[in-house]
Amino acid sequence: MNIKPKRVPIHPSSLFVIGEFGLIKRIAGKAERKDKSVLVGIGDDAAVITRSIPPLISGRKGGVSPLLVTTDSLIEDVHFRRDFPPEAIGWKALAVNISDIAAMGGVPEHCLLSLGIPDGISIEYIDRFVRGMTEAAEEYGLSLIGGDTTSSPDRLYISVTVLGKGSDNVLLRKGARAGDVIFVTGTLGDSALGLKIVEESGVGSREFGAKFRNPQSAIRNQLIERHLRPTPRVREGIQLANIGMVTSMIDISDGLLCDLGHICEESRVGARIRIDELPLSQGFNALSAKYGGIELALSGGEDYELLFTVRSKDVKNFMSMTEGTKYTPIGEVSKDRVVEVIEADGNRYLPKSSGYEHFRR
Amino acid sequence: MNIKPKRVPIHPSSLFVIGEFGLIKRIAGKAERKDKSVLVGIGDDAAVITRSIPPLISGRKGGVSPLLVTTDSLIEDVHFRRDFPPEAIGWKALAVNISDIAAMGGVPEHCLLSLGIPDGISIEYIDRFVRGMTEAAEEYGLSLIGGDTTSSPDRLYISVTVLGKGSDNVLLRKGARAGDVIFVTGTLGDSALGLKIVEESGVGSREFGAKFRNPQSAIRNQLIERHLRPTPRVREGIQLANIGMVTSMIDISDGLLCDLGHICEESRVGARIRIDELPLSQGFNALSAKYGGIELALSGGEDYELLFTVRSKDVKNFMSMTEGTKYTPIGEVSKDRVVEVIEADGNRYLPKSSGYEHFRR
Repeated sequence: MNIKPKRVPIHPSSLFVIGEFGLIKRIAGKAERKDKSVLVGIGDDAAVITRSIPPLISGRKGGVSPLLVTTDSLIEDVHFRRDFPPEAIGWKALAVNISDIAAMGGVPEHCLLSLGIPDGISIEYIDRFVRGMTEAAEEYGLSLIGGDTTSSPDRLYISVTVLGKGSDNVLLRKGARAGDVIFVTGTLGDSALGLKIVEESGVGSREFGAKFRNPQSAIRNQLIERHLRPTPRVREGIQLANIGMVTSMIDISDGLLCDLGHICEESRVGARIRIDELPLSQGFNALSAKYGGIELALSGGEDYELLFTVRSKDVKNFMSMTEGTKYTPIGEVSKDRVVEVIEADGNRYLPKSSGYEHFRR
Repeated sequence: MNIKPKRVPIHPSSLFVIGEFGLIKRIAGKAERKDKSVLVGIGDDAAVITRSIPPLISGRKGGVSPLLVTTDSLIEDVHFRRDFPPEAIGWKALAVNISDIAAMGGVPEHCLLSLGIPDGISIEYIDRFVRGMTEAAEEYGLSLIGGDTTSSPDRLYISVTVLGKGSDNVLLRKGARAGDVIFVTGTLGDSALGLKIVEESGVGSREFGAKFRNPQSAIRNQLIERHLRPTPRVREGIQLANIGMVTSMIDISDGLLCDLGHICEESRVGARIRIDELPLSQGFNALSAKYGGIELALSGGEDYELLFTVRSKDVKNFMSMTEGTKYTPIGEVSKDRVVEVIEADGNRYLPKSSGYEHFRR
């Protein structure tokens, strides 16, 4: 998510030519090496490594569940503004990493925090940040085990690493096959809409705190909360890994279309989703029109819902086994490697944006 | 290490009142929770977690060696300047984390890289950065398994996480006892002296690259190289863990006195070191006088040498078993909880600085 994009001319060797995902591939191409202990390397939500034990001890290979590791940074004025409630920034910094573990169907266990702190930040600010982070850690059962703190010339830099336990059935981006049904958890677009509302309000830090709890605008507050305090879908991820019918999974951080694109690319398939099937909240239906409408649900990003695919023959069984949990079918995997969005009248809808990518405009 | 400290008035709730180490304790106090899987949490060079396997499979508890995890960030204009050779920045970003694993006597295995990239950085710059990092990864046998990239408003932000394998004898900061002999690997002060030489030269990016390889000033280049491309002491760390006579260990990142202070604090002891025993390089002896002299070796920081203690009754044995590796005894652990520096004439030396600490001036 980008808060205040800067506009400068694009130089030929600028990263804007290859984009964030091009850069990740480029780094992987230059830096990856063969390593039997690495089950999944660069390019999925989390890395998966195995810590096998000597066969003499275990009597079998891989007596330990795979270790999941992920890291994500949040930079002031890119991922958050300093006048956001610090508790919310702390919660989010951990939650987005927990979400990456959830996207593999794993159990988050430990975290590390690295902070770059500029002069203008007080002890109280850090205390409140740590409180928010600790709330998320308690909610999801993680222990903070280390990290580092350093001074920063101007902006607050936050980097979090989360370690987790993978099941025997780690869910990857790759694995979707033509005919599979595409599902999402929760509702889409609320976070992007919440950010629009925050940006529009233009409130400063103290007011923001008040606005955040304004009983006069409960719907707005709920949407803002969805942006500030996202809910990683850990329980759902674990259920989806255990149930054994899911063929691929990712969490929605860059927007539905963008992250569906990642599944399609890794699985070498395409997808067709139907706009009128997208799960939208009441708040979204009430307020989104003014702020970009359905585009927010298609490309807004930072929903931190899980997007996954289920074999079509298993769908009936899957639906009955997971009754009571909000999993919504929104389309199907197709052969032709393109992501299509279909309107209620059956026509093809052309989205204005395909989602958020750093180094793209 | 701080490249260009900023001077602003100190606010009562400023972090400068409690300092970096006070802040780390404060965060630990607020965020740590009981967790049996955490053998060592916040406050050592790396965290140590255990991933025990079910007794039915292993026949014993803890069939897997402990997992070591550490994370460290580098921020432009705090830890490096953009006009440093990008290969050196990449090397160093990984090396400082590897050094934390070495300081526990562990074997580094996997790493993750998180990059915040401002507009002014080109693809070529990132390529060169990745090349330097990959060189360090190959040198020390690590695999890059993940990370993330994001845009940054102005400064290059680098955060690295390293995972490693601990032996059955993980070496901690705590464990030193009065009478133990204090040792260091390698030589001290070269890195701080190298930085002084870089800063004095005031050269820009292209010139810097040339200067860096200037055959006319081999000594200067060696010292600069010690700053830009530190050598984590992995082999030494593993040897020291295996040999079983070492009671405590840390790597020297903040300066000899500062890091010795960490050992003393965690072990609840004091220390006495002798200036004329400190191992100094030829280059240091030739050039240090002009730039701060022995203070650079006492408090300069970023040596990434290992500082450790050996039981006095084992010292003779230790010396003969490790012949051929540069381990220099520099003093002893004492009962009274103070770090003393003794001059050649037996008088007490009062250092001007006790080492580098973020949020201190």
